[in-house]
Amino acid sequence: MASESGKLWGGRFVGAVDPIMEKFNASITYDRQLWEVDIQGSKAYSRGLEKAGLLTTAEMDQILHGLDKVAEEWAQGTFKLNPNDEDIHTANERRLKELIGETAGKLHTGRSRNDQVVTDLRLWMRQTCSTLSNLLWELIRTMVDRAEAECDVLFPGYTHLQRAQPIRWSHWILSGAIAGNPLGVDRELLRAELSFRAITLNSMDATSERDFVAEFLFWASLCMTHLSRMAEDLILYGTKEFSFVQLSDAYSTGSSLMPQKKNPDSLELIRSKAGRVFGRCAGLLMTLKGLPSTYNKDLQEDKEAVFEVSDTMSAVLQVATGVISTLQIHRENMGQALSPDMLATDLAYYLVRKGMPFRQAHEASGKAVFMAETKGVALNQLSLQELQTISPLFLSDVNRVWDYRHSVEQYGALGGTARSSIDWQICQVRALLRAQQA
Amino acid sequence: MASESGKLWGGRFVGAVDPIMEKFNASITYDRQLWEVDIQGSKAYSRGLEKAGLLTTAEMDQILHGLDKVAEEWAQGTFKLNPNDEDIHTANERRLKELIGETAGKLHTGRSRNDQVVTDLRLWMRQTCSTLSNLLWELIRTMVDRAEAECDVLFPGYTHLQRAQPIRWSHWILSGAIAGNPLGVDRELLRAELSFRAITLNSMDATSERDFVAEFLFWASLCMTHLSRMAEDLILYGTKEFSFVQLSDAYSTGSSLMPQKKNPDSLELIRSKAGRVFGRCAGLLMTLKGLPSTYNKDLQEDKEAVFEVSDTMSAVLQVATGVISTLQIHRENMGQALSPDMLATDLAYYLVRKGMPFRQAHEASGKAVFMAETKGVALNQLSLQELQTISPLFLSDVNRVWDYRHSVEQYGALGGTARSSIDWQICQVRALLRAQQA
Amino acid sequence: MASESGKLWGGRFVGAVDPIMEKFNASITYDRQLWEVDIQGSKAYSRGLEKAGLLTTAEMDQILHGLDKVAEEWAQGTFKLNPNDEDIHTANERRLKELIGETAGKLHTGRSRNDQVVTDLRLWMRQTCSTLSNLLWELIRTMVDRAEAECDVLFPGYTHLQRAQPIRWSHWILSGAIAGNPLGVDRELLRAELSFRAITLNSMDATSERDFVAEFLFWASLCMTHLSRMAEDLILYGTKEFSFVQLSDAYSTGSSLMPQKKNPDSLELIRSKAGRVFGRCAGLLMTLKGLPSTYNKDLQEDKEAVFEVSDTMSAVLQVATGVISTLQIHRENMGQALSPDMLATDLAYYLVRKGMPFRQAHEASGKAVFMAETKGVALNQLSLQELQTISPLFLSDVNRVWDYRHSVEQYGALGGTARSSIDWQICQVRALLRAQQA
Amino acid sequence: MASESGKLWGGRFVGAVDPIMEKFNASITYDRQLWEVDIQGSKAYSRGLEKAGLLTTAEMDQILHGLDKVAEEWAQGTFKLNPNDEDIHTANERRLKELIGETAGKLHTGRSRNDQVVTDLRLWMRQTCSTLSNLLWELIRTMVDRAEAECDVLFPGYTHLQRAQPIRWSHWILSGAIAGNPLGVDRELLRAELSFRAITLNSMDATSERDFVAEFLFWASLCMTHLSRMAEDLILYGTKEFSFVQLSDAYSTGSSLMPQKKNPDSLELIRSKAGRVFGRCAGLLMTLKGLPSTYNKDLQEDKEAVFEVSDTMSAVLQVATGVISTLQIHRENMGQALSPDMLATDLAYYLVRKGMPFRQAHEASGKAVFMAETKGVALNQLSLQELQTISPLFLSDVNRVWDYRHSVEQYGALGGTARSSIDWQICQVRALLRAQQA
Repeated sequence: MASESGKLWGGRFVGAVDPIMEKFNASITYDRQLWEVDIQGSKAYSRGLEKAGLLTTAEMDQILHGLDKVAEEWAQGTFKLNPNDEDIHTANERRLKELIGETAGKLHTGRSRNDQVVTDLRLWMRQTCSTLSNLLWELIRTMVDRAEAECDVLFPGYTHLQRAQPIRWSHWILSGAIAGNPLGVDRELLRAELSFRAITLNSMDATSERDFVAEFLFWASLCMTHLSRMAEDLILYGTKEFSFVQLSDAYSTGSSLMPQKKNPDSLELIRSKAGRVFGRCAGLLMTLKGLPSTYNKDLQEDKEAVFEVSDTMSAVLQVATGVISTLQIHRENMGQALSPDMLATDLAYYLVRKGMPFRQAHEASGKAVFMAETKGVALNQLSLQELQTISPLFLSDVNRVWDYRHSVEQYGALGGTARSSIDWQICQVRALLRAQQA
Repeated sequence: MASESGKLWGGRFVGAVDPIMEKFNASITYDRQLWEVDIQGSKAYSRGLEKAGLLTTAEMDQILHGLDKVAEEWAQGTFKLNPNDEDIHTANERRLKELIGETAGKLHTGRSRNDQVVTDLRLWMRQTCSTLSNLLWELIRTMVDRAEAECDVLFPGYTHLQRAQPIRWSHWILSGAIAGNPLGVDRELLRAELSFRAITLNSMDATSERDFVAEFLFWASLCMTHLSRMAEDLILYGTKEFSFVQLSDAYSTGSSLMPQKKNPDSLELIRSKAGRVFGRCAGLLMTLKGLPSTYNKDLQEDKEAVFEVSDTMSAVLQVATGVISTLQIHRENMGQALSPDMLATDLAYYLVRKGMPFRQAHEASGKAVFMAETKGVALNQLSLQELQTISPLFLSDVNRVWDYRHSVEQYGALGGTARSSIDWQICQVRALLRAQQA
Repeated sequence: MASESGKLWGGRFVGAVDPIMEKFNASITYDRQLWEVDIQGSKAYSRGLEKAGLLTTAEMDQILHGLDKVAEEWAQGTFKLNPNDEDIHTANERRLKELIGETAGKLHTGRSRNDQVVTDLRLWMRQTCSTLSNLLWELIRTMVDRAEAECDVLFPGYTHLQRAQPIRWSHWILSGAIAGNPLGVDRELLRAELSFRAITLNSMDATSERDFVAEFLFWASLCMTHLSRMAEDLILYGTKEFSFVQLSDAYSTGSSLMPQKKNPDSLELIRSKAGRVFGRCAGLLMTLKGLPSTYNKDLQEDKEAVFEVSDTMSAVLQVATGVISTLQIHRENMGQALSPDMLATDLAYYLVRKGMPFRQAHEASGKAVFMAETKGVALNQLSLQELQTISPLFLSDVNRVWDYRHSVEQYGALGGTARSSIDWQICQVRALLRAQQA
Repeated sequence: MASESGKLWGGRFVGAVDPIMEKFNASITYDRQLWEVDIQGSKAYSRGLEKAGLLTTAEMDQILHGLDKVAEEWAQGTFKLNPNDEDIHTANERRLKELIGETAGKLHTGRSRNDQVVTDLRLWMRQTCSTLSNLLWELIRTMVDRAEAECDVLFPGYTHLQRAQPIRWSHWILSGAIAGNPLGVDRELLRAELSFRAITLNSMDATSERDFVAEFLFWASLCMTHLSRMAEDLILYGTKEFSFVQLSDAYSTGSSLMPQKKNPDSLELIRSKAGRVFGRCAGLLMTLKGLPSTYNKDLQEDKEAVFEVSDTMSAVLQVATGVISTLQIHRENMGQALSPDMLATDLAYYLVRKGMPFRQAHEASGKAVFMAETKGVALNQLSLQELQTISPLFLSDVNRVWDYRHSVEQYGALGGTARSSIDWQICQVRALLRAQQA
């Protein structure tokens, strides 16, 4: 049985600790990555203690100097953990005491580990959110660059995975870029920073509340949901059947059995991580549910969730950027996938422009689709006479309907698929990118 | 087999629809509550069509007048649903056509039901968020009022459900009020309003993206998590063992078997709803995961989730307000629950003020606690001589430590439990309340 | 304020109940569907009371007769709810008292509503599980019938959505049928029945434990996950790009905007329900987490979850059966989707049979695929000379490799895609179907 | 850029792999713990190959011998991973080839890594389930031992956390033991073993289906839900206010700030893990949702979930066993917590035995409770005259009601709290324990 003497509450305990319990209780295996922010926090706190007259200036200097040494050991990989270092706070303070002696004991005046861990995690998340935000902007920049470069490529727009109307390839890319817009991160980041003051509104709430963790995990879940949908699209577009895009070898994997296979593992992994990240968010909320107020050890679950999700997001964003930047598109296949029946709505609009109410025009166009299907011809191969059996409003100028490029140019409203609208969307996202860098 | 003629896509289909499929597909049983916003949206849209030259002014007037009549029928409960009215949009347009004839068919020009349903849901959620926000402010107002009125009541603060330090009852109340701070709702509400323009950045994203739904469900989940914790506290405080509070009969229920029981059903239900609301959030995210871009019928799941969560939140907030406003506190029991060992930290601080480093002081105080326990006396009943065997720094002025009111007054920092700090917190929340009303 | 006199705990309460609380508390709006099992349970209980000497035989007969009358009113739709009927148990007992007088008050001797509600829910779930089980068998029967009828159709097997090897269409159908094997339901059903005795092992556990609910919700979640995957496959196979299958009009929906569209709404809804059902499972587990033992009102959440999930499963299973039974397959397209590179594994096996270790054979076949791609020809169009530059083991009999039907016939092991293996699988599932009917 | 030559699909790829993608793709960091079962599976498979004539006996012996050497390296910690070893299967095969040369290349004939990983995971889980099952039985044994030893201790039974009726302490312990009954594990374990044959019913389903993982994660979630509830009870019972139990120091932790605190960290951690474990279950189901059939890389998420949950369960079960076995109970406090109003139901039964219908008796007893409360006396201090104002059926023998031990002895039905019933429950659980050992 290990002696209790090194424990923080050493004055009181008389029993031994079950070694499994000790391991179960300890967070040092994963919270060691907080070492830098823990020291940063302690340095700030020792300055506060000096200001409050609880440390002399000399003592403060001694502590600051000692903490710098501890930091150096971590940075150089020479910091040695003790079996009794149950968390990063204990470890750092224990080492500080070895380095500077009893003065170290004054550092903890008036704060609890519950305070420390919340502060550390907030500081760590500020850094992490900033890193993730940059990675997300990088992905968006890549998407906008491609959208601009490949603006002239048309391909089918789908709803319900059924071909709907011709759209620009850039329109699809930008739909992802916009969905991935990381304003959320910044807003949360900012909110977290600004709310340091708001949060100290109530000290009970301060150690007990983990909204900043839950909101980060939810942001990540929602972001991953978007990326899982983008991955799904690209996996489909990369099948033999669609053949719109081809992943670069750098983001594909072969089969150990089937030599001809080239699998979109990168995209499948991105898609799968939506589950993992959400699972962490779900787990934390369940842990928080019904917990009595203030600190309970249950809250220790927050850190591993945040660390894992942060690592996952970082990898996902970088791989997604790589995938998008190296993806090849097959322009010819995309063009060949356009078919006249995708212009059936345009055919209805033709009639609307001739004065027919939309509902009737929709029905008339539907009849034309049915007639073409029955006759086994393409919609644009119905003769004028045939069309006129459906409505006398059809005239020879109906031929203009069958031009895909003309079709997409109709959608010039903001957000549409016309060239001008795509240009405007690119401008908007570029403006965000510039604002971000400023 | 029902004739297809009344269906929107009537021109094309030749087969029959399985009646179970029809029911499975239809959303009218729950989306009928969108009737008002659907008409509001259609009125705005018909004005847009007139501006674009797709409707004459006379046609627009006819449509606007017709829509008003449809609205009147809904308001008076005389609107009659057809078996073919699969959703609210179809139902309203069908009725409009009956009322004003073929002109009704022009209303749908250039918009799809996918657009309509997103717009309707956004409009509906704007109203709902505003209602819920008001209910949340009402709860907060109630909490602040109590916090002010009962500021002088001390009782134990707990961490890990172990008695920690004396705090003011108002401190506890305000920790809930602050956690429930509905700035989130307002921010989202505002964001939703402002982002109408941002969202039209890309038309594919516009029909496909449900962030505003997911964020609402997550806000509700997080809010319920807070309320579940407040409920847990009050359930505990209301046990015979704690006896700090007593629920009014209006929010309690008796037992059908045990005549002496008075159960905190209201609080238990509040606690339980955290699961239900989160379940809806989890369900929606799972539904969204891996969905191809643009509209897929899967997205139909959004509405029932939002409606149910909105109803739940509305009931929960009102019941919580009722519970807090009628709750009785047992001042005497709260006072008696304070015990000298809760001042052990103060005892350590006493030594710190005499110059001992906190770690040593903490250990010394721990020894005093252990000594008192061993002797079977309260901590404040140790004699000065006994204390001095632990540290010679103990002098007769140690007696001042044993005053609970003096103890809480030490915590005068912002967010603390001193009278002045509580007053400041009340001021802060009142300022938010005033800002809200303005 | 409503008089309390009609309440079960009427003797004690003096305050009024907040009407919102009353509504929040009441379960009658959804638990009324338990009317039949509630009466069934009460009839059994009154027989128990008579046996225990707590009712005379005459009293029991009076109660049984009264309960039959109550049941009749429910069955005929003439039962009238009172505002004070907060749940089905209260409602039935109140009505019984009106019908037979004070004797009704003896029925509740020695049981609590907490007991009643658990018993009722178990009885209700026994019926429901039986119904769902039948629907699931119906779906499986449909799948096996198709698998048998269309056994000769080959089409690409996919992994990672990349074409892998030729398989029989029946192989795909049976993979769904087997995944959907409802032995789970029966096992649970049986377990639930058998465990009535086991569960009374401990009376505290009996009212508090909701494993049978959680397990039902999880069974439904897992079943829906399987169905969501089957739906995903069929949605893909039904795209223009795959064109392997066509949904019947009975399970498709048109677009309100695009006349040519025919959307697989039925399959999209099935896919989406996986989220909803899992959300209920997640919600219940969160509600249960950390609850004190025995009954807490939080447990009231169980019923709505079960009712909704039961309704959803019932609709999903019927629609899935309809979809599968009316789906058309496009044999020609399926055949045309087979391409020689899908036989690259067979090419490797050819070399293995000539004595080459598999790893080398895999690499050699990979080189052949690469050579064909580089030359822009199909894999089977490489000349023998070209193949021999890769390995001298290639001889003229390599031509036999390029026969798809021969390829699938190789996989004759149990579970494989050879005709004999498919037949065996059909036999196995048919045996289960027969066992089920017996 | 790393050469591709060492990759399994080396024959084909020409591009480089992004190193971040390589790391993102690799599973070796966590699947290395499958080394033993991977070798076990490969040994079995090489025997199968020999039987099928695809390996000579000499080749098989060479492979078996080589695999034993690889296993030895793992066991002794001398196995060296290559940067190209992306998963455990590749690593083992690569090493085998180094040890025995080209023959190693024959081992992979006719199986894919998708097959290997499923088989490995099944074998690993068989071991793990067996270990966890033993740990769970150990916990149950501990609980039964205590239940037997402390059978005579009475304390309040609670519903809604309100004191309900006197029960035996053993009754509470056994409610946990029964809820934790691991028949589930055994059943699943058995099912998994038996279903090896069933699963090969269809080869597509075999690599694609992860029911055995999902069911394991759900079993763990449900088990943790039970343990979270047991933990919640013990945390409450350990508060100053309840003071029914005291955790041994081995499972408690002190406060770094407050010297008098002894926190139930072990129980709080157990409670919190319910969230983590469920999060993994939720994450996996979300990952599975809507996945196309057969293998997709998304399925790689299964292993980390299983490994983490298995570790968590193992720690939780051992800590729970330690907590229960060292917990001290405060008999005196438990006895003092019993109060006469908890016998109000018995008072009603007294009247029932005199012939009053239960509903009236319940009301009469309620009036007595109210009368006692109003007079400020305990329920058993009402005089006979006072009781008779409520009902003339009260006679002097009402005094026998006020004996707690007599009260619990009434509940002699199976599952009740009478001594005989507790003895019977202990017998039942002991029989399960014996059956388990056999």
